[in-house]
Amino acid sequence: MITRMSTLFLRTLREDPADAEVPSHKLLVRAGYIRRVAPGVYSWLPLGLRVLRKIEDIVREEMNAIGGQEISLPALLPKEPYEVTGRWTEYGDALFRLKDRKDADYLLGPTHEEMFTTLVKDMYSSYKDLPAILYQIQTKYRDEERPRAGILRGREFVMKDSYSFNMDDAGLDEAYALHRQAYQNVFDRLGVKYAICAATSGAMGGSASEEFLAISPNGEDTFVSATGGDYAANVEAVVTQPGVEREIDGLPAAEEHHSPNAETIAALVDWANATGITMDGHEVTAADTLKCVVVKITEPGQEPELAGILVPGDREVDFKRLEASLEPAAVEMASDKDFATSDFLTKGYVGPRALAANEVKVYADPRIVKGTSWIAGGDAPETHVVNLVCGRDFTPDGFIEAAEVREGDPAPEGQGTLTLERGIEIGHIFQLGRKYTEAFDVQFLDENGKRSVPTMGSYGIGVSRLVAVLAEQRLDEKGLNWPVAVAPYQVHVVCANKDQAAIDAAEKLAEQLDARGVEVLLDDRPKVSPGVKFKDAELLGMPLVAILGRSFADGKMELRVRGAETEEIEAASAVEAIVSRLAV
Amino acid sequence: MITRMSTLFLRTLREDPADAEVPSHKLLVRAGYIRRVAPGVYSWLPLGLRVLRKIEDIVREEMNAIGGQEISLPALLPKEPYEVTGRWTEYGDALFRLKDRKDADYLLGPTHEEMFTTLVKDMYSSYKDLPAILYQIQTKYRDEERPRAGILRGREFVMKDSYSFNMDDAGLDEAYALHRQAYQNVFDRLGVKYAICAATSGAMGGSASEEFLAISPNGEDTFVSATGGDYAANVEAVVTQPGVEREIDGLPAAEEHHSPNAETIAALVDWANATGITMDGHEVTAADTLKCVVVKITEPGQEPELAGILVPGDREVDFKRLEASLEPAAVEMASDKDFATSDFLTKGYVGPRALAANEVKVYADPRIVKGTSWIAGGDAPETHVVNLVCGRDFTPDGFIEAAEVREGDPAPEGQGTLTLERGIEIGHIFQLGRKYTEAFDVQFLDENGKRSVPTMGSYGIGVSRLVAVLAEQRLDEKGLNWPVAVAPYQVHVVCANKDQAAIDAAEKLAEQLDARGVEVLLDDRPKVSPGVKFKDAELLGMPLVAILGRSFADGKMELRVRGAETEEIEAASAVEAIVSRLAV
Repeated sequence: MITRMSTLFLRTLREDPADAEVPSHKLLVRAGYIRRVAPGVYSWLPLGLRVLRKIEDIVREEMNAIGGQEISLPALLPKEPYEVTGRWTEYGDALFRLKDRKDADYLLGPTHEEMFTTLVKDMYSSYKDLPAILYQIQTKYRDEERPRAGILRGREFVMKDSYSFNMDDAGLDEAYALHRQAYQNVFDRLGVKYAICAATSGAMGGSASEEFLAISPNGEDTFVSATGGDYAANVEAVVTQPGVEREIDGLPAAEEHHSPNAETIAALVDWANATGITMDGHEVTAADTLKCVVVKITEPGQEPELAGILVPGDREVDFKRLEASLEPAAVEMASDKDFATSDFLTKGYVGPRALAANEVKVYADPRIVKGTSWIAGGDAPETHVVNLVCGRDFTPDGFIEAAEVREGDPAPEGQGTLTLERGIEIGHIFQLGRKYTEAFDVQFLDENGKRSVPTMGSYGIGVSRLVAVLAEQRLDEKGLNWPVAVAPYQVHVVCANKDQAAIDAAEKLAEQLDARGVEVLLDDRPKVSPGVKFKDAELLGMPLVAILGRSFADGKMELRVRGAETEEIEAASAVEAIVSRLAV
Repeated sequence: MITRMSTLFLRTLREDPADAEVPSHKLLVRAGYIRRVAPGVYSWLPLGLRVLRKIEDIVREEMNAIGGQEISLPALLPKEPYEVTGRWTEYGDALFRLKDRKDADYLLGPTHEEMFTTLVKDMYSSYKDLPAILYQIQTKYRDEERPRAGILRGREFVMKDSYSFNMDDAGLDEAYALHRQAYQNVFDRLGVKYAICAATSGAMGGSASEEFLAISPNGEDTFVSATGGDYAANVEAVVTQPGVEREIDGLPAAEEHHSPNAETIAALVDWANATGITMDGHEVTAADTLKCVVVKITEPGQEPELAGILVPGDREVDFKRLEASLEPAAVEMASDKDFATSDFLTKGYVGPRALAANEVKVYADPRIVKGTSWIAGGDAPETHVVNLVCGRDFTPDGFIEAAEVREGDPAPEGQGTLTLERGIEIGHIFQLGRKYTEAFDVQFLDENGKRSVPTMGSYGIGVSRLVAVLAEQRLDEKGLNWPVAVAPYQVHVVCANKDQAAIDAAEKLAEQLDARGVEVLLDDRPKVSPGVKFKDAELLGMPLVAILGRSFADGKMELRVRGAETEEIEAASAVEAIVSRLAV
């Protein structure tokens, strides 16, 4: 069926919407693909819905190809299973909660681990029933604090979530590998530029976890990739290359110094250089100082406890990395009140020794190893210690990934150095393990007739987000530019000539293409100027635009590959020219 | 792709689920099509989801064929538009309401008139943009007081809702007629047995309205059809054939009688006959008495007011009919307190005269016309009036459809009499008119450049409900029985022979059918007995079952059309035999 611009439910806008921050959001609204209803809540108009459905179909094909079975769970879910796992409260404000007329508690599903686990428990009971991969493509809800960039971070969005169930770790590894490959197939078919990043698993629990990040300067996530290898990782998951240990014997002794007005790292370095202090014979830089950040860590169900985080003075503490390291515990900076009530804390002069002496745990960046020597706070006003040696003068309670990651940091396994890029999370694969099956006491009979807890994986693709990602990665200053695989229509036939012969030819071309299985959008609007039609065609972004313009009188047409050159073709052979180009 | 029973996510149950009332609900759960998550909230398992999606596709095709354009609006909706129309409160407990993290009010969409109206207002502004038919196939939410019969009346369900926009009534009539035909096409293609019933439009407002009711003894709705014509109507919409007016001159005068213990109609008839009273020369029956029911009517935003409802004594007041007649006002029976505080009301002896004398409105059944004569309450204890004549002794303030409808009542337009049937609402088409466009001040420029308010229609199909309806109408004692058009698989190949040759032949048959575009479910379970496989095949209900059994050794197979005879065919020509049967 040919779609005609004269009747299509569409109005293109010249002005960017006031609330749009990123280019894809502006263009998707201006081109009439989506329309805002509330913050982070959007309607899909005809063109946008076609893209969404095509992406869904590609995801579905690849999930079916790895043996995934499609089901569909409700979005309206009872509280109880989410209480069993604690996520009813853990999700905090991000969960949409509601009550029914009988005052029973419900939530709008943000992700369905609990429901798939209980469903499988309900249906299956034996190793013979496994392996199983179940998935759904479904509308999900998260009450994001900052819904952003249109459908890039919505509060109502479409996600493919799948869950694997296996008896043993080898089976989980296999299901994980199948998903990893299926996801690569999906993103390759869509033509998304992406990186696969080692990830922390966040609130999901579990062990192995990778994120698929679409590379985009407007991405919210920062990730690193190696200059000399294929290593890539979410910043939260970057593993710091440890420092080199040194023999302690023979290192200069720690000395206390009066250090007035040296409460910042910069002031401390200035003071040290003004005082003529050197470290290992060189002038002092920020990297020689030890930053000791006092925080409060709250383990679930526990009281907050103070802790010290040590990082080299030339680096900030990256709170997102710190949080990821400490999860599921929450962490916050120690407050003025904490300083006031803990008299061993001297603001601006905190060092590791007073913390240890007062039974406050101290966690160190992996560069702070035995034999490294530092200028650190002296735990008294206007006092610093020079040559404070790790393993001699202080001993951390453990290592922690908390320091910021910087461009040029060494990559692991000798893969050169790290570069920082920005990306948009489009997929995530997790080895959940037995967290959920244990929570719901799922026990299957194994091959020996014994009860055994199955192991799970959880895998997501942000389906509606991919619409924005494709828009974002491929747009130009004129408009959108869809890949053939998911374009609302493959060909946009523009009649830009008022002669009846041209109008008839445009109709006929559209019909012939339609008969060949090509999806055609026909700009048949009688009273719209060629210029407006061209602008709209560029804004809407179909991969091929076929124009019947002035040269039609000479039996010619123009064929424009979106974003590329315009080519003049013979009108008589337009159908073949178009079909052959789409086949490429 | 062939689906194998050995890996299909399925467990068939022998026992009916405890909460299931109707056969379709029992079988859909036992056959593993759906699974309960919460009251009125169900998961769709692989087989059920396939049926649902196929129904969606048929609906989509027919909607596209009438020029409908598919879009998709959110389910999570802001309160404001529903406040404009008053439905935020009118929906009462049936609306799922919630708040986001910023304490803003939201609802889960039960139907989207408000959102489509504001969307069209937002996008369009001229008569040139119309007509438009927009639709979505979407998950909807209603907090039903009594969710029932599985997916027959769920709280989360899939609906196709569409909305037409036209400049004038003729356009609306056309859009309505297009939908009416599209709905017939959908239900005919599905093979649903249904009736098109004149309906009241309920809370939707507007004028012309018809319901499509699937005929089923387990239906919640009662409707009437004419024995001698194609008239059918929802009971709420039945128009009573009016009584025959008579000349008042010459009718006997009203007489007060002492009528002890005649507080019910039966007692009143007994008393009249025992007293020797006759009406028009015949013995008194209940039809000669006048039942006067005192109610309280509350118009929106108003205080409740007393009213009298008059019906012939041989009929009950049907409260659903009364409510439909009075909508949007609410109505309830007058309470003991009302009787106690209104001293002109004499319980058991209320007649129309005291009500009128006390400025209480009186509404009469259309049979109670000028010149009809009744035995009515005398408005004093143990008192009745005989020969109370309408138009002489009392005059109703208006007519009302409130009396029960009975089998055998005359049908309109001489179409014989009415029969009562039960049905399940599967579709509803409304001429909304300008209720919503006026509420949102939608003004379009008309052909003369003047502002004009477009008129709307609203049309719904219960997509997920249709799964249950098809199950309900077609099941037998053995299981489900799907029509080819929406069966999860068209053919169920059952290998009931343990010889390797049969196993190989079953695989090959499945592959060959798959290559011919036939959807195949292959029962390849190696350790399951033929008896269990046959029972499962009957329970699951694919339209064709191809069995490789004992006779396979002789080159034979069995072909069972679900619900019909089994036929022996040559195994060698099984593919052609199956393909030709499916083409019928």
